[in-house]
Amino acid sequence: MKNTYIIDFEPIGLRIPCSKGETVFDAAGKAGIPIISYCGGKTICGHCKIRIMNGNASTISKNEKNLLSEEEIANNYRLACTMRVLSDLKVEIPLESLETIQQLQLLGKEPQLSLDPVITKYEVKLQESSLENPLADWENLEKFLEDKYGFKNLRPDISLLQNLSSNLHNKNGVFSAFIRDDEVIGITKSAEDYYGISIDIGTTKLAVYLVDLGSGQTIAIQGAMNPQIAYGEDVMSRISYAMENGVDQLKNCLLNTLNQLIQELTGNPEKVLDVTIVGNTAMHHLFIGLPVIQLGRAPYLPTIVQSLDVKARELGLNVAQGAYIHLLPNVAGFVGADHVAMLLATEIYKTSKNTIGIDIGTNTEVALSVNGDIASLSCASGPAFEGAGIKHGMRAGNGAIENVKIKNNKIDFTVIGDVPPTGICGSGILDTISQLRQQKIIDQRGRLQDHDFVRKIKAGREFILASKENAGIEKDIVVTQNDISEIQLAKAAIRAGINILLQEYGINEDEIENVVIAGAFGTRINVESAIKIGLFPSIPLSRFTQVGNAAGVGAKLALISKEYRSIAGNIASGVRYVELTTHPKFTREFSHALQFP
Amino acid sequence: MKNTYIIDFEPIGLRIPCSKGETVFDAAGKAGIPIISYCGGKTICGHCKIRIMNGNASTISKNEKNLLSEEEIANNYRLACTMRVLSDLKVEIPLESLETIQQLQLLGKEPQLSLDPVITKYEVKLQESSLENPLADWENLEKFLEDKYGFKNLRPDISLLQNLSSNLHNKNGVFSAFIRDDEVIGITKSAEDYYGISIDIGTTKLAVYLVDLGSGQTIAIQGAMNPQIAYGEDVMSRISYAMENGVDQLKNCLLNTLNQLIQELTGNPEKVLDVTIVGNTAMHHLFIGLPVIQLGRAPYLPTIVQSLDVKARELGLNVAQGAYIHLLPNVAGFVGADHVAMLLATEIYKTSKNTIGIDIGTNTEVALSVNGDIASLSCASGPAFEGAGIKHGMRAGNGAIENVKIKNNKIDFTVIGDVPPTGICGSGILDTISQLRQQKIIDQRGRLQDHDFVRKIKAGREFILASKENAGIEKDIVVTQNDISEIQLAKAAIRAGINILLQEYGINEDEIENVVIAGAFGTRINVESAIKIGLFPSIPLSRFTQVGNAAGVGAKLALISKEYRSIAGNIASGVRYVELTTHPKFTREFSHALQFP
Repeated sequence: MKNTYIIDFEPIGLRIPCSKGETVFDAAGKAGIPIISYCGGKTICGHCKIRIMNGNASTISKNEKNLLSEEEIANNYRLACTMRVLSDLKVEIPLESLETIQQLQLLGKEPQLSLDPVITKYEVKLQESSLENPLADWENLEKFLEDKYGFKNLRPDISLLQNLSSNLHNKNGVFSAFIRDDEVIGITKSAEDYYGISIDIGTTKLAVYLVDLGSGQTIAIQGAMNPQIAYGEDVMSRISYAMENGVDQLKNCLLNTLNQLIQELTGNPEKVLDVTIVGNTAMHHLFIGLPVIQLGRAPYLPTIVQSLDVKARELGLNVAQGAYIHLLPNVAGFVGADHVAMLLATEIYKTSKNTIGIDIGTNTEVALSVNGDIASLSCASGPAFEGAGIKHGMRAGNGAIENVKIKNNKIDFTVIGDVPPTGICGSGILDTISQLRQQKIIDQRGRLQDHDFVRKIKAGREFILASKENAGIEKDIVVTQNDISEIQLAKAAIRAGINILLQEYGINEDEIENVVIAGAFGTRINVESAIKIGLFPSIPLSRFTQVGNAAGVGAKLALISKEYRSIAGNIASGVRYVELTTHPKFTREFSHALQFP
Repeated sequence: MKNTYIIDFEPIGLRIPCSKGETVFDAAGKAGIPIISYCGGKTICGHCKIRIMNGNASTISKNEKNLLSEEEIANNYRLACTMRVLSDLKVEIPLESLETIQQLQLLGKEPQLSLDPVITKYEVKLQESSLENPLADWENLEKFLEDKYGFKNLRPDISLLQNLSSNLHNKNGVFSAFIRDDEVIGITKSAEDYYGISIDIGTTKLAVYLVDLGSGQTIAIQGAMNPQIAYGEDVMSRISYAMENGVDQLKNCLLNTLNQLIQELTGNPEKVLDVTIVGNTAMHHLFIGLPVIQLGRAPYLPTIVQSLDVKARELGLNVAQGAYIHLLPNVAGFVGADHVAMLLATEIYKTSKNTIGIDIGTNTEVALSVNGDIASLSCASGPAFEGAGIKHGMRAGNGAIENVKIKNNKIDFTVIGDVPPTGICGSGILDTISQLRQQKIIDQRGRLQDHDFVRKIKAGREFILASKENAGIEKDIVVTQNDISEIQLAKAAIRAGINILLQEYGINEDEIENVVIAGAFGTRINVESAIKIGLFPSIPLSRFTQVGNAAGVGAKLALISKEYRSIAGNIASGVRYVELTTHPKFTREFSHALQFP
């Protein structure tokens, strides 16, 4: 009897081996196929849906029945985390069950891969030097690379030299050499895999992508909170901290976390031969250890915007000794390399349609492309959309209320992880406020009206979203008048940014042909709710696309392709920067956008 | 009354200020004019002779009268260390009173200075960025350097960035920028001096030259013992040490000493913006921290011979944060960058005459140029010529016997520092053996014969060079049969090398047109004695030139001129390396050269 089967994943076309009785989720995980799961494979969240096209699996479990709809079950949908493999299988992974990067590939948003990384690998087989031909070790290698591959004037990384002689003689002259431009940056055993890492340093979240540089495939993704949160939730508070205490702590805590993530992802960081990094200008500067004082006050000057190539060891990032970090270029002010990477990954940089690109985060960057010309700005939207500064706010994890509907004095919502609710995540509060406004429980200025679910408290009023009695929880989960104000401030900042960009080009809302929403929060929100509260212009839903972490994808593109690095440079220098905080129309637009439609 | 006078030094043409009553030696020292002194200005050695051409000085002292000949006194010679300045003065520094580098310049051996260092300084005056024109700090600087000086695609050193913003704003945008190729490596206050450092890492001695990169002038020279001596006197014993204990200790003790020397020379190492380094391949490797195992056994392979440019901070050398070290190229085996630098400084690389270049040290390198083609080899001559392994051997310092004459059963010698003798230096022992052979006190095979000054001891015989009674010292200073053997081994190794090179080109001794002797020891020896013991071929004395530390001068040339760096590269790759130890004719030549003529 066979103990190993093959699972054929469609539509991505990957065929991977798996053991009999293994879950599809585990098999996919080992192969680096990022099937979404919020509960980590515990059959709680119901997000890891797949459809069986062919083959045998374990019979459907009770938990699966609870988490899948009848229609889904009828159509052979199953949960990857609990379904065990009993034969060769062919399964379909629906789009929504894949992590962003695969989604983008499937959506055609990650452009055709012209795999052309700055690091290339060459197989080497050296003749032993002799007394008659006493070629020094480096010159022996250099001559081979010239004779066989045509390289001229190569130079060695200094750390390579430190191990070259022992490596050469221990490996009998057979090994792989990695070359970057005119520099040999490392050697390894022959025919080993070699990797690159792309890092998206968000103000709140870090995302690290492990990429096989031989194939260009993303083979694992790891996320973590940015540990700098301990020194301030938003960019400005971190800059304040750095002004008083210097940047070292901020730099080092970030570095430690990244080194841990890289260690976990790779097992052996020495296999990582190239790194790309994106982040807003403050994250960029803090990663390098640049001061941020001048960034925190008008005229908000970065120390540098152009791209940088630095030996990773110079910045303390633990990867291969000779590896470089490529920091993608910034634009200006707080509009950083993450924005450039977003424009790169979404291809907004080459659209001829009037397109808005928006990456909602603690700092929100907005770009408007009109006839191929792009203007960008940064809005201090704050962390409210990420659940911070909200009374019962929480990040989008187990227990967070989302998908809120209020109708006929009845409140419906779902809870992530299908557990009793413990708070509200950003998309949940956005939904809630949208519903409150539709039901006229708040007025145009956001003030809570008299209502069965509204009660007076010392600090004003609050809306009871989940009551102790109904939800079986220990205390009510509420949305306060203050929470509503926080969201108003956030959405007003973003909407003012959008409007000012429209005015810069003299076009109307109706003329916007596409809105591309990037970022984890942006991917999770209900666009209709966002329009209803006035966060986005009121244009047809079909013009919106939610693309997930496009900044991370852009960082990956720059990792696997020299051409994309060069395009990123062109984007950064081509984008027109608009300073929002001192813009003459900002105050008016902002005040206006505070109101609800 | 004036308290400050001007001293005009001829023939170097320097005019320097000095205080009334100051010694010429002190004034010259402050100005970096390297007047030779073995006693450090204590009026003991009598080497710091100068000639008064014009002006008033303190009257001649008793010590001066003892140390100068009557003829010298009649010709206005004085000792710089004791003569005090009482008016403006014009003095001549005779060639022999100057350190090597100035000697070489005066001898025309340091070629016409085409000052063209890799580092150039540009004065900068930046416009303040504004909200209307929010240029990032680096881009502001980059744009200025492009607009004013025509630079394209400049990139910043990462450490420059870390201080750029504060430097820019604190200096009101006015400062000097230092550029190396396409990289801005540092900024300083406007119009400050900036320096380079050249380092000659000898197996026994270190020499550090501080050079004004604005003028190309050497402004100070500092020497020290190589602290690695603690781990072995010669190259092979250090390699053995490294094989057992790794290279870290050897690397670090050298680095510490160099950092101290640089600190002492400069007061502020941040002003040092470029560094060049020469040494034999073992010193070169140990400085970088490369393993030397493969260098210590046949086929004696260096890890690398080509020149290297490395950030000084990567190797732990304390100079300006953004500065590079340029390590000149090696040839092969132990023939290192110091040999290349010697060929560069002496211009042997472009002579059309049959020329031998020889740098005598613990390892001795010999080059022979015939019709512009150069072959080089390395001889393990050992430290005997530097006084090590010799019973009463010592380095050439106070108390060392030199200039030995033996005639009519009378021994004459001088003692460095004019103090009672405490030992014999290399040139002293070379003289002694030459005299012993001339007086037939040793036979052709070096055996001590019966003689009044020869006595038998347990281990054979010894020659009494300075007896307790005659020299007023506590015990006799002798030259043992074993000492003579050590010198025979050393001179035989070198002479075998010379002969094998002559055979490689098929020319006779008589056809040698020039012999250039470099190195501190080589500068001190009596060439006639060296010929008499068979160290050098017996050709007319007029064909010999003693040029001092030519390797150090070569390192300096590479510091102040890009062209010389490139010539050094051509020399290194053009020189034909001859492996001596395994040469088929070596044993015969060596055995033959053991004998005395």
